[in-house]
Amino acid sequence: MMKLTELLNPGITDTSRSPHSRMCSISPGSVLISSGFWHDRIAAGRTRGLLRLYDLLEEHGVVDNFRRLRGKPHLERKGPIFTDSDLYKWMEAAALTLWSRHDPALVSLLDHVIEDVAGAQAPDGYLNTYFVQEREKDRFSNLERDHELYCAGHLIQAAIAHFRATGKRSLLDCAVRFADHLVSTFGPDSRSCFCGHPELEMAMVELYRAVGRVEYLVFAAYLLDKIKFSSRTSMEGHAVRAGYACCGGTDLYMETGAGETRWALDRLWEDMEGLKVYVTGGIGSRYVHEAFGEPYELPNLRAYAETCAAISNGMWSWRMLSATGECRYADMLETVLYNGFLSGVSLSGDRYFYMNPLESSGSQEEGERGHRRVEWYSCTCCPTNVQRTLASLPGYIYGMDPKYIWVNLFQSSRLSGSTGSTALTIEQVTRYPWEGDVDITLDHDSSIELGLRLRIPSWASRCRVHLNGDELEGVRPGRYISMDGKVDGDSRISASFEMPVRFMGSHHRAREDFGCAAIARGPLIYCVESVDNPGVDVQNLMLPADPGAEFEFDPDLLGGIGVIRFDALEMTGGGPLYQNLNERELDLDPRRVTAIPYYAWANREVSSMLVWLPIAPGGSDSQYP
Amino acid sequence: MMKLTELLNPGITDTSRSPHSRMCSISPGSVLISSGFWHDRIAAGRTRGLLRLYDLLEEHGVVDNFRRLRGKPHLERKGPIFTDSDLYKWMEAAALTLWSRHDPALVSLLDHVIEDVAGAQAPDGYLNTYFVQEREKDRFSNLERDHELYCAGHLIQAAIAHFRATGKRSLLDCAVRFADHLVSTFGPDSRSCFCGHPELEMAMVELYRAVGRVEYLVFAAYLLDKIKFSSRTSMEGHAVRAGYACCGGTDLYMETGAGETRWALDRLWEDMEGLKVYVTGGIGSRYVHEAFGEPYELPNLRAYAETCAAISNGMWSWRMLSATGECRYADMLETVLYNGFLSGVSLSGDRYFYMNPLESSGSQEEGERGHRRVEWYSCTCCPTNVQRTLASLPGYIYGMDPKYIWVNLFQSSRLSGSTGSTALTIEQVTRYPWEGDVDITLDHDSSIELGLRLRIPSWASRCRVHLNGDELEGVRPGRYISMDGKVDGDSRISASFEMPVRFMGSHHRAREDFGCAAIARGPLIYCVESVDNPGVDVQNLMLPADPGAEFEFDPDLLGGIGVIRFDALEMTGGGPLYQNLNERELDLDPRRVTAIPYYAWANREVSSMLVWLPIAPGGSDSQYP
Repeated sequence: MMKLTELLNPGITDTSRSPHSRMCSISPGSVLISSGFWHDRIAAGRTRGLLRLYDLLEEHGVVDNFRRLRGKPHLERKGPIFTDSDLYKWMEAAALTLWSRHDPALVSLLDHVIEDVAGAQAPDGYLNTYFVQEREKDRFSNLERDHELYCAGHLIQAAIAHFRATGKRSLLDCAVRFADHLVSTFGPDSRSCFCGHPELEMAMVELYRAVGRVEYLVFAAYLLDKIKFSSRTSMEGHAVRAGYACCGGTDLYMETGAGETRWALDRLWEDMEGLKVYVTGGIGSRYVHEAFGEPYELPNLRAYAETCAAISNGMWSWRMLSATGECRYADMLETVLYNGFLSGVSLSGDRYFYMNPLESSGSQEEGERGHRRVEWYSCTCCPTNVQRTLASLPGYIYGMDPKYIWVNLFQSSRLSGSTGSTALTIEQVTRYPWEGDVDITLDHDSSIELGLRLRIPSWASRCRVHLNGDELEGVRPGRYISMDGKVDGDSRISASFEMPVRFMGSHHRAREDFGCAAIARGPLIYCVESVDNPGVDVQNLMLPADPGAEFEFDPDLLGGIGVIRFDALEMTGGGPLYQNLNERELDLDPRRVTAIPYYAWANREVSSMLVWLPIAPGGSDSQYP
Repeated sequence: MMKLTELLNPGITDTSRSPHSRMCSISPGSVLISSGFWHDRIAAGRTRGLLRLYDLLEEHGVVDNFRRLRGKPHLERKGPIFTDSDLYKWMEAAALTLWSRHDPALVSLLDHVIEDVAGAQAPDGYLNTYFVQEREKDRFSNLERDHELYCAGHLIQAAIAHFRATGKRSLLDCAVRFADHLVSTFGPDSRSCFCGHPELEMAMVELYRAVGRVEYLVFAAYLLDKIKFSSRTSMEGHAVRAGYACCGGTDLYMETGAGETRWALDRLWEDMEGLKVYVTGGIGSRYVHEAFGEPYELPNLRAYAETCAAISNGMWSWRMLSATGECRYADMLETVLYNGFLSGVSLSGDRYFYMNPLESSGSQEEGERGHRRVEWYSCTCCPTNVQRTLASLPGYIYGMDPKYIWVNLFQSSRLSGSTGSTALTIEQVTRYPWEGDVDITLDHDSSIELGLRLRIPSWASRCRVHLNGDELEGVRPGRYISMDGKVDGDSRISASFEMPVRFMGSHHRAREDFGCAAIARGPLIYCVESVDNPGVDVQNLMLPADPGAEFEFDPDLLGGIGVIRFDALEMTGGGPLYQNLNERELDLDPRRVTAIPYYAWANREVSSMLVWLPIAPGGSDSQYP
């Protein structure tokens, strides 16, 4: 019998040979997405966002920073110290795009950029456009602050994606040279190295997976050891850094199985999921240091929730899913993708949020980092990170182990692989997330030993799964259901997730959310935006008993979205900031209001927005459906 | 008939001749406080805080910064750029202390410090220990950032207090020389000046009042004009700066009566009182830039609410009261003094908070600016500001206009003045804020035309006032009641404010407070602290219907405080961060808990603390007394 891993190539993370991995990614090149929710989002990013970002990187001198090191020395170095990484993330996005889709113009552009990048590499392998010429002497002098290793990590990730997508070694060779330079420079027996912005850890593990040289794995272990990763129990400090460190820790665990690393990962996950994540999957609530707050410190208007931090949560969740096969990690990945990540990019695919608040008055604050989407930031980490994440998305839908195909996400798509005379096709058809019916058809010959694991989302309390017409037992929300030994060459699986409108509450310590409800349906968190509700300031809305919520797909709104209409009460009276409770009179006027998916807010005129609606005094949990 | 203003000296602000002032302060030297609430707090500051702060200023080189400019040039300049102002605020505190109380040792110490300060003054009048020697060329080069004018303002304020308290001109002459230097350097016809940290404005107006030279008033008007004060309508940016600017604006208005300035003051006050002040009187909710947030952005755990910002609110409220005679400004002053200001200093009088959160897990964060009191900050603006405010407190209790004595605050005290054969004594006896009975006895001869205005606090919905045994009509909370033409030489006034425990609610847009109640009694806001409630984590408390609150004075607790005991529910179950409301089960265990006044928190072991208690689901406003 042929193993799946012989038929399908690994994708973004290759854990096919990792001893402590349950699931391996599948190459985006094996997954064709030709319509549906993510098709539209990925296409917007590819057609509108990716090339525009390249132009902006050129305009801001980010590419010239490399060119000045070979033949154009008159150019001045531009941008923040870490801006090399912005180009690397763009290159990774371009490579991932090419993995799913042939595009000769993009191939040519990327090849030219690689030439520019590789041309800036020093003979010893060092590559960074900041620490050159008069600053060459400062190389590696402040690894806590200077982002040199962070940039190296993004170079390596871009190189691996490019190599896997195209088979070309041009960027990989360059990355390997730099990696070798790092490995020979630092280590327990040579120069010590404490990296202030994790990222290189997961890149080094992946490079080990890609080229098979164990010194990269050892170096990743060394880096994580220097930040005492295995003794950490609390997500704290800069959220993106913490999230990337956890990615590296999980990657390391999948290779080594080290118990203390796994112990730390479990503690850190509990800490994030139980105390420090927004209902959207966003993390890092504080403006100060872009950091995690205390437990339950989750302000909505002042949510920082950087787009990059949501991405780091998604990347970590993917790795935890790969390591353990547990559905809760796929649930978090899905929450992030549909909400806290996707809010970071406009529907047009070319305007971005750095912060992702859960309430807004529409006022622009803190200069460019406000509540309006822009196409560029002076610290432009998020836009390029958005594009590489969109381009990677086909790689998250399915997973594999030697025997099973894992269906992690629901998206109309065709997964196919063939080798010699053996072929496999899995066709998924769905209108998810607007509708909860998912039809999967398998077409493969008997030389493949195939099982299927289908994710039942944790929110899907009312769900049925049929295999070739027979209803399966043991379907439980928050678990993968395994179809084992029963999946024949032309099996049909149909899953039906009921999608009632849900009213979610929070733990009582999440002070801004308790006493409020967030409206959800399927994997989507909803919000009310004033632009949909003329004459209503949504920041003044409250929830009555029995809001009578109804879902409707509106093909004409925002390119086609599902809206939720419900009864609300608008506080019209104003009133003092503080008042004795027994003297308070709330002027509550009934309104029928429209909510849209959170990810789609701020795509029209500037408007106020609210996710968590206060429940009018006297309201109790039991009155909500 | 003799006017009161001939009998009593003005105090901290002298608006006795200000054309647009309704009330003038009375010299702290005329007010004797020998027992009661503020006696204890002022005494703690004077005996424990003031001299210890001087030692710390010495220890950190702040006084040596001046000495090095005359005879000790080998010393290195120490501390932040604005630290001269710390010494000036200490000097103001010392001068105010001497105003109420004879203390030869303090006189001598202050005289020596004045010698050191005056000795550092340049021949042209310039005085700042940072911009000297190699940095002399940078004087006035960055007024937006460099705090030079801010320091000058504090020098002038200290000098005026010293002159008024002691009659000595040693520091005043020095301040006048610097003021003259500033006036001759800047102005519409000479060098332009945009000051980044307001403070000098109110100092210049007061200097005009103290020495009568109109160019200081004109300069204050110029400074306020440069920051476009009269067109401002929103409290925004750095809270202390905004508050001090409003002080200067109010002082200017009292001299000029400019309509546009008054218009701005009214708008700014509405903006602060209606949208941006904590229930404690604290202002400036954001860590980022120590700034005001958006309307209703009032986080509790992450309240910044700098002690200096509360002080600026109190100083502004005092000036608005002086300008308008309206009780609401005295209400705000009282709220600040008993809550958001007083929380900034320990009961021992020598340990301080920079931030004043309304919720705490007890964990220390952000280095020294955490939720634990310390005796010194590297940016030590708050401690010296606390001490000058405590020392100024006798000056806020009463006010005067030509005909009336104003009783603004309730505190056992004796106000007395005499000139020649004419004498006046007003004796106030009260256990306020623990009890609401206030007895006032007047003793004066008939050559004084005397009326009395007694403040009825806005919270005092149940209140009676008797004059010589007859109950007065027209007693309304939030108004001064005027006793006019009826106050004889030995009148007795007794006011009785009922002090029920109050449960206060917030506007629905104050997201962390809505659905919660703050417990109040009289002018005090209460909090629950875990150290008083063994086995209970107060952060998990909720309010049930009818909490059965009882007040009791506990002479043994924290030096004698009034506590409130009430029924609460403790969430014991934990539970997920988010959950469908209809699936949520709250495990609520009944507890009888003890609350203490907010100002007294964090005076014992590290403990969690909460001001706003969530109302358990299903609770409605009407169930609270």
